Amino acid sequence: MTKQHVGFVGLGAMGRPMAENLLKAGFDVTVWNRSPDKMQALVDQGARKAERLAEVAKPHGIVLSMLADDAALEEVALGDGGLVEALSPGGLHVSMSTIHPETARKLADAHAEHEVGYLAAPVFGRPDMAAAGKLFVTWSGWHSYKERAQPVCAAFAQGFYDYGSDDVAAANVVKLAGNFMLASAMEAMGEAYAFCEQQGIAREQVNAQMTETLFACPAYKNYGDLIARHAYAPAGFTATLGLKDIGLALDAGRQAKVPMPLASLLRDRLLSLTARGHGDKDWSALGLAIAHDAGNDPTER
Amino acid sequence: MTKQHVGFVGLGAMGRPMAENLLKAGFDVTVWNRSPDKMQALVDQGARKAERLAEVAKPHGIVLSMLADDAALEEVALGDGGLVEALSPGGLHVSMSTIHPETARKLADAHAEHEVGYLAAPVFGRPDMAAAGKLFVTWSGWHSYKERAQPVCAAFAQGFYDYGSDDVAAANVVKLAGNFMLASAMEAMGEAYAFCEQQGIAREQVNAQMTETLFACPAYKNYGDLIARHAYAPAGFTATLGLKDIGLALDAGRQAKVPMPLASLLRDRLLSLTARGHGDKDWSALGLAIAHDAGNDPTER
Amino acid sequence: MTKQHVGFVGLGAMGRPMAENLLKAGFDVTVWNRSPDKMQALVDQGARKAERLAEVAKPHGIVLSMLADDAALEEVALGDGGLVEALSPGGLHVSMSTIHPETARKLADAHAEHEVGYLAAPVFGRPDMAAAGKLFVTWSGWHSYKERAQPVCAAFAQGFYDYGSDDVAAANVVKLAGNFMLASAMEAMGEAYAFCEQQGIAREQVNAQMTETLFACPAYKNYGDLIARHAYAPAGFTATLGLKDIGLALDAGRQAKVPMPLASLLRDRLLSLTARGHGDKDWSALGLAIAHDAGNDPTER
Amino acid sequence: MTKQHVGFVGLGAMGRPMAENLLKAGFDVTVWNRSPDKMQALVDQGARKAERLAEVAKPHGIVLSMLADDAALEEVALGDGGLVEALSPGGLHVSMSTIHPETARKLADAHAEHEVGYLAAPVFGRPDMAAAGKLFVTWSGWHSYKERAQPVCAAFAQGFYDYGSDDVAAANVVKLAGNFMLASAMEAMGEAYAFCEQQGIAREQVNAQMTETLFACPAYKNYGDLIARHAYAPAGFTATLGLKDIGLALDAGRQAKVPMPLASLLRDRLLSLTARGHGDKDWSALGLAIAHDAGNDPTER
Repeated sequence: MTKQHVGFVGLGAMGRPMAENLLKAGFDVTVWNRSPDKMQALVDQGARKAERLAEVAKPHGIVLSMLADDAALEEVALGDGGLVEALSPGGLHVSMSTIHPETARKLADAHAEHEVGYLAAPVFGRPDMAAAGKLFVTWSGWHSYKERAQPVCAAFAQGFYDYGSDDVAAANVVKLAGNFMLASAMEAMGEAYAFCEQQGIAREQVNAQMTETLFACPAYKNYGDLIARHAYAPAGFTATLGLKDIGLALDAGRQAKVPMPLASLLRDRLLSLTARGHGDKDWSALGLAIAHDAGNDPTER
Repeated sequence: MTKQHVGFVGLGAMGRPMAENLLKAGFDVTVWNRSPDKMQALVDQGARKAERLAEVAKPHGIVLSMLADDAALEEVALGDGGLVEALSPGGLHVSMSTIHPETARKLADAHAEHEVGYLAAPVFGRPDMAAAGKLFVTWSGWHSYKERAQPVCAAFAQGFYDYGSDDVAAANVVKLAGNFMLASAMEAMGEAYAFCEQQGIAREQVNAQMTETLFACPAYKNYGDLIARHAYAPAGFTATLGLKDIGLALDAGRQAKVPMPLASLLRDRLLSLTARGHGDKDWSALGLAIAHDAGNDPTER
Repeated sequence: MTKQHVGFVGLGAMGRPMAENLLKAGFDVTVWNRSPDKMQALVDQGARKAERLAEVAKPHGIVLSMLADDAALEEVALGDGGLVEALSPGGLHVSMSTIHPETARKLADAHAEHEVGYLAAPVFGRPDMAAAGKLFVTWSGWHSYKERAQPVCAAFAQGFYDYGSDDVAAANVVKLAGNFMLASAMEAMGEAYAFCEQQGIAREQVNAQMTETLFACPAYKNYGDLIARHAYAPAGFTATLGLKDIGLALDAGRQAKVPMPLASLLRDRLLSLTARGHGDKDWSALGLAIAHDAGNDPTER
Repeated sequence: MTKQHVGFVGLGAMGRPMAENLLKAGFDVTVWNRSPDKMQALVDQGARKAERLAEVAKPHGIVLSMLADDAALEEVALGDGGLVEALSPGGLHVSMSTIHPETARKLADAHAEHEVGYLAAPVFGRPDMAAAGKLFVTWSGWHSYKERAQPVCAAFAQGFYDYGSDDVAAANVVKLAGNFMLASAMEAMGEAYAFCEQQGIAREQVNAQMTETLFACPAYKNYGDLIARHAYAPAGFTATLGLKDIGLALDAGRQAKVPMPLASLLRDRLLSLTARGHGDKDWSALGLAIAHDAGNDPTER
C-alpha cells in the first residue's frame, strides 16, 4: 500500500521532532527548511529533501508548516514558488506556527483565492513533548480540513481542541493566550522564588511544594524546575521568540481593546533580557531577570 | 480514655470548618471568637464555648488560631488574658493565620519569654478544602512543636511542608509567596480569557482547554472556573483580604530587597476593586476588574 | 511681487490653524483634505482648493503635510497622484505628522528615488499654540531642505530644533519621546491629584502650587489645569491619537531594545479609555481613568 | 535687642543649610543632631550646641526639625527628654520632615496633650535651594502657629503654601504628592532619553530641547541635567530616601483607596537600585536603572 505523502516546512526545535514522528508513523515525508543543513538529519531517517520549496508539496496534497514568525510564513506560503502555488487547487496547508490572528485571516483569504485549504493549527508543548508525540493541537477552520489533517497530526499530538470555523484565526488567538499564560506563570514563580530565597528559603524547596500541590501541572512543573535551578540553557523556546509572541498578544489585544498589563510587564522583561544579551536563553530566563533586579544574579556570582 | 483538649480561636470562613473537623476527629474542643454569635454552630456540634478568651486554653495545653490579620492575632496572643498568659509555660500556640513574617518573629519571641511554644503553621486551601480535611499545612519552628501539633492538624490537613527551625517565620514567607502565586494565576487567566472573549471565543472553552492540559492543577481549576463564569460571590476569600496579603508580600519583599512588579500590579488591581465597592467579592474578582478595563464589565450589562 | 506658493495637506485640529497662519503670512496657499468640507473655511480666508490631491503641489514646489497617522501619510505621499508624483524632481515635502521613525525612513527613500526632497519636521504644541504661531518645529534631514522650509514654517513656529541629517527620522524619534513625556506628566498629575483629593485636598489647590513652583512650565500648566478640573472635552488631541503615539513609541523602543514600562502603563490606560468609550476625549483623560480606578469617577457622580 | 531663639534638630543635607540661613538671618540658634560631629560646622558659624536633645528647646520656645524618617522624628519628639517635654506648654514644634500623614496626625495629638503646638511644614527644594534660601514651605495646622513660624521660616523659604487647619497632615499629603511627581518626571526623562540615545540622538540634546520648551521648569531642568549626564553622585537626595518616600505615598494611597501604578513602578525601580548597590546615589539614578535595563549601563562601559 502506498504511503500517504506529507510535506513539512520548518525544521526548527519544534518542527524537527514533529517531522520525525511523521516518519515513524509511516508517512512519506518531504521536508524543506530555509537553512538546508537542517534537512540532512531527516533525510537520514528516511525523509525526502525538497531542493526547492515548491517540491515539498504534491499537487492537491497536504503540507504542514512550523515557522518562526509571520514574515517567514507569509514568504513560504505566498511567495514565488510557495505553498499556495505548489499545492494547487485542492491542496491543504496545515499552518502550525504561532502567528498574529490577522496574519492567519489574511493567509486564509489568500489560500482561498487559489482554492487551497488553510487550517490554523498551532500546537502547545515543548520540543520534548513534540518528540514524545504529546503535543496539543488547537485548531480552527473548516471541519473537512480537520478531518483530513487529523490522521496526520495524530503522529505527534495527544489531543485536539477545536475552535470551530467562524473565525479561522480563533486557534491563533488561543495559542497567544496560552503562551501569555505560560510566561505569566514563569514571572509569578520567578518573583515568588526570589522572594523566598532572599528570606533564606531554598528555591527548590518552595518549588517542590507548589508544584506538588496547588500548581501540580505541566506548565509549573516544567518551568518551575528551570526557574528554581536558574537553568536557562539550552533553550526550548528562546526569550527572543517569547518577546515576539507576547508582542503579538499585545497587538491583538490592542485591536480587541483589552488592556493586558501583565503582558506589558512580560514584554518589558523579555525586551530587557534581549537588550542585555540573554535573547538566546530559554524564555524562562524571566526568572534570571527577576533575580538580577533583586541584586542576586546567578550569572554574576 | 480522655479526649485531648484543643483550643481554637477564630471561627471565620476557614476556622469554622477546621474546628468542625477537630470535633469530628474526637478532640475536646473549646472555641472562642470575637463575634460571639459564630460560636453557637460549633457548640451545637459538641464544642465548648469560652466565655472569655483565656478560657480557650488549658494551662500547658495547645491552642490553634486562625485570624484575619496581624493586629487581631497580636491582640489575641499578647493582650490581657490572651493566649500567652493562658497557656502558661509549656503550652503551645499553633498560629495558622497569614501574617507578616516580622509579626511571626516578634510573636515567637514574646511567647518564648513566657516559655510558651509558638509554631508558624499557615495553611493552603479554601473553605471547601478545609471542610474536606484537605488543607496543606506549611510550618516552621521547633521540631518538637511539630510533633506535638501534627496529630491535631491531621484532622484537617492532607499534607505537611516543613521549613525547618532556623527562621520561625519561614512558613509565613512561603504562605505569602503561595498566595501571591494564586493571585498571579488569576490575573493571567483574567487577561487571557478577556483577550479570547473579545475576539469571539467563549471564556469557558479556553478555560476548559487550559485547565485540562498545561494548567491542570487545583489553583487553575478552582479559580479558572470562577473567572470563566465571572462568579465572584459568595467569596471564599475576599478581595479585601487578598489586598492585605499582597500588601504583606510587597512589604516583606521590600525588606528583602526583591522587586515584585507583578505583586505591585495585583495590589493596584485589588485596591481598585475595593475602591469601587467590590472588596467583599472573592479575590478572583481580579477577572472582573480586567473585564471592566476592557469595557466589558459583566455587572454593567 | 509674486507670493510664494505653498501646498498644505491635512486640515485637522492642528493643520487648519497652521494653514491659516501661512495665509496670514502672505503665502499663496493651496489646501487639500480628504474630507472636502474642511477646505471651505480656508478658501474663505483666501486659500485655493485642490480638487484633486495632485493639484496641491506645484512642480518643484513645496508642500507641507499634517496627517493623522502613518497610513494616511503614506497614501498621500506615495499613492497614485500623490505628492511624490506631483512635486516632481526638485520639489520638497515637509512632513510634519507624528509617525513611526521607520515610516519616515521609508518615505525619505521613496522620495529620493524620485528626486523629491523629504524633510521630517514634526511639531510640538496644541491647536491654540498653532493658532498663535507658537509651535516648536523639530526637524531632521538635509540642511538645504531646512533652509528652504524655514521661512515657510516661521509662519506658525516660534522655534526650531535641528537633529542633523545622519538619520532623517531623528526628529520623529524626538517627537515620540516628547509626546511620551507629555503623557507621563499627565499620569503623574492624575495620580497625585487623586491622591490629594481623596485625602481632602482640592485638586486645583495642589495643581496651583505645583505649576507655580517645581513644575512651572507649559506642559504642566496646560494639562494640569485640564486634569485638576477633569475638563477633557473638547479634545485638543484625542485619547485615540495618544494611544497611537504611545504605541509608536513602544514599537520603536522595542526595535531599539529600550524597555519603557511607563509607556506600557500609559498604553494600557489609554487603551482602557478607548475600550470604555472615552477615545474621543482629550488624552489628558488619563486623569479620568485614574479617578475612575479610585472609585471617584467624575462622570458617574 | 535680644535675638529670637530657635532650636534646630537634624543637620543632614537639608537641615544644615537651613540652620545656616537662620544664623545668617540673625536668630539665636541652638542645634542638635544625633551624630554629634555634624554640629561643629554650625557652632563654627555661631550656633550653640545642645549637649542633650532637651537643651535644643527653650521652654515655650520654637524648635524646627528636619529628620530622615518617621521613626527618627517620633523618637526626637516623644522620647524621654524629647521636644514635647522640653518645649513645655506654649512651645511650638515646626515639623519639616517628609513623613506619613498618619504619623503627623499622631504627633499632633501627642503634642496637643502636652499643650505644645505642632505645625506640619515640609519643604520642597534640594540642598542648593536650601542654601539659597529658596525653599517652598507647604504647611497645615493652626493659623496662629503659621504666624509664629513664618518670620523664622522666611530665613530659608521663598514661598509658603497653606493647606488650612482641617487636617494637620494635609501638608504632608501634598509633600508626598510632590515627591512622587518629581520621581515620575525622572522616570519619564530616563525612559525618553534612553529611547533617543539608542536611536542615535545625544541625551543632552533632547534634554536641552525639552527643558527649554514644554518642560522649562525647575524639576525638569535640575533632574534632566543629572539624568542626561548620568551624574548621580554626590546625592542631593538618595535613592534609599526616595524609596522611603514613594513607600509612604503608596501606603497613604492605599488607605485613601487610590491605586497609583506609576508610584508602584517607581517603588520597584528604586528598590532594585538599592538591591543592586546604588542606594546611596541620587534618586535620579532612576535614569541609571532604565539605561541598565536597556543594556546600556554607563557604569559598565
